Amino acid sequence: MTISVRTFLSVVLSTALIIILSACGGSDNSSTQGAAAEQQTFKWKLVTTWPKNFPGLGVAPENFATLVDRMSNGRLKVKVYAAGEIVPALEVFSAVSSGTAEMGHGAAYYWKGKIPAAPFFTSVPFGLNAQEMNGWLHHGGGLELWRELYAPFNLVPMAGGNTGIQMGGWFNKELNSIDDFKGLKMRIPGLGGEVFTRAGGTAVNMPGGEIFTSLQTGVIDAAEWVAPYNDLAFGFHNVAKYYYYPGWQEPGPTLELIINKSAYDSLPDDLVAIVEAAARTINQDMLDKYTSRNNAALIELEKSGVELRRYPDEVIKRLRETAQQVMAENVANDAMFKKIYTSYDAYRQQVIAYHKISEEAYFDIRND
Amino acid sequence: MTISVRTFLSVVLSTALIIILSACGGSDNSSTQGAAAEQQTFKWKLVTTWPKNFPGLGVAPENFATLVDRMSNGRLKVKVYAAGEIVPALEVFSAVSSGTAEMGHGAAYYWKGKIPAAPFFTSVPFGLNAQEMNGWLHHGGGLELWRELYAPFNLVPMAGGNTGIQMGGWFNKELNSIDDFKGLKMRIPGLGGEVFTRAGGTAVNMPGGEIFTSLQTGVIDAAEWVAPYNDLAFGFHNVAKYYYYPGWQEPGPTLELIINKSAYDSLPDDLVAIVEAAARTINQDMLDKYTSRNNAALIELEKSGVELRRYPDEVIKRLRETAQQVMAENVANDAMFKKIYTSYDAYRQQVIAYHKISEEAYFDIRND
Repeated sequence: MTISVRTFLSVVLSTALIIILSACGGSDNSSTQGAAAEQQTFKWKLVTTWPKNFPGLGVAPENFATLVDRMSNGRLKVKVYAAGEIVPALEVFSAVSSGTAEMGHGAAYYWKGKIPAAPFFTSVPFGLNAQEMNGWLHHGGGLELWRELYAPFNLVPMAGGNTGIQMGGWFNKELNSIDDFKGLKMRIPGLGGEVFTRAGGTAVNMPGGEIFTSLQTGVIDAAEWVAPYNDLAFGFHNVAKYYYYPGWQEPGPTLELIINKSAYDSLPDDLVAIVEAAARTINQDMLDKYTSRNNAALIELEKSGVELRRYPDEVIKRLRETAQQVMAENVANDAMFKKIYTSYDAYRQQVIAYHKISEEAYFDIRND
Repeated sequence: MTISVRTFLSVVLSTALIIILSACGGSDNSSTQGAAAEQQTFKWKLVTTWPKNFPGLGVAPENFATLVDRMSNGRLKVKVYAAGEIVPALEVFSAVSSGTAEMGHGAAYYWKGKIPAAPFFTSVPFGLNAQEMNGWLHHGGGLELWRELYAPFNLVPMAGGNTGIQMGGWFNKELNSIDDFKGLKMRIPGLGGEVFTRAGGTAVNMPGGEIFTSLQTGVIDAAEWVAPYNDLAFGFHNVAKYYYYPGWQEPGPTLELIINKSAYDSLPDDLVAIVEAAARTINQDMLDKYTSRNNAALIELEKSGVELRRYPDEVIKRLRETAQQVMAENVANDAMFKKIYTSYDAYRQQVIAYHKISEEAYFDIRND
């Protein structure tokens, strides 16, 4: 039996090809997606509820996109759209649910009309602060409940930022008793809004980009947005005089990244890991930034004539009682609200107990 | 001129090898590192100052390794070693500096003997809490100063965890006045240790794995380690009776990941981004975990007979004054200490001012 040089070459080359490809592609059979999927490039749209590059909130999804691009070596390209560029701010949820965009960035409590329990994943009046919220989400069962809540909408949510405790809002009159809420129309979303309405006011939900004009034209009388760093950027000090604290309505609001489930499932495992780690990164980075920027902004606001006011104890007491009623009613009316409340409230009680002797006790001893 | 079959084969195979390798490595010219580097596999050793898989502290570098492996699709493999497996706990810094291992996980204040300013990057008595520390590092100039401080040692540091405020330590006698520190030998590292010594005690630095036996055999009289979740794991309640709070000595300790500079520089940009994001992820995840686990552990400790004690106000007052003296002396003695103190203290003053009306004010109103 003879073989030609050509045949011999062919056999040698084929063998070499297999050896080399398996060496450079890795021979790990545990990868279910395989080399082809790993090298596939994805181009995603990310719609947001924020004005373009708005400090903190609008910058976070841009940072997410940059980080994912770098980590994936360009295999996952995410283009960020401001509110109104593809869909209005308050249609982000529907757009990602339907697949118009693969991702969205906003706040869960904007979807309260559709999903009563959604506000748990932003912030609860008199509830968890930022550190506690992150603990509940990532090591207290919160994230699993959030994913269960959004599953019927074909969405995978994750934490995508936290502002730290917000301010109590902008008013043009002083608040001396709970009766001063009567007749006030205030931009205040989520469960804080329900409490405000129950306390005699009228709560309105509107995206950030509409607040200034609404305050200026008298469409609303008061508004809470975020904290000095962000409130200064919108210029609320030009249309309101009193700046109240502390933000009982949003003690540690989480922002959300939502991903269309089908898009999420199409990613190979390494890109899933990259997306989750990039989300975790912006989640922490936003809090780091607000923590670092708020005081300088507050000084600037005070220089411009804003008067800082602490909510009177009596008003806080009434708001706290009202918040308890609002929570109880929602628990009675909605099964998922009840299920999530059970987890949230158990977590809240134990973390408050520990923080009394740790974080809270420390604030007491730090200063003379 | 004739060529043999052997020579011909050799040329064909070499050419095929180049074509195939360049095809499977991608042909993106925008990457400065090139295709070869992108597909290169790295195998790194990560040495730690912790016992194997110790809750929180020892698990964090394992989580880091798993996440990097997933995100890089196996291109960066990091093997984690417990204290003593390759080098003893307190030789981690030297081992990574010299390149014996590419990475290390520990706490910056362990290297105070070598670098007086290192403790800024763990925790400062009466200084920043966890949220504030992360703010200073990532948006207040802290990380840049840390990298400057470690550059002469061929090391790139980054935050790799935070326990939240620690407890004030384990004692076998009650503390009624600062005089009760006299003659006490306590495991308490860093600047907290300097303050303790100045207050009349004797501070000792030793890795976690040696504390229990040292307490049991009377080598030391007292010890601070972390917080209930970790202190329970070491069983200190079996050898000490009183558990003091709050942890004035470490209000928000950062753990560190250190990378040998030459190893860091050898990574292509996507792996650098992956390493940084994985570090950021474990940095947040550790805090989330402690926040979620400490209270249950504290309840268990109290059930076992541990008596919880608050540091008397008078003792705290003296410790605070002593801490100010210790800081002032270090500022006078070391140029880098002074440079970093200037940044840290300016940050501390402004963040305290803002947290008085936000995080701190919120703790006041949350409970009736």
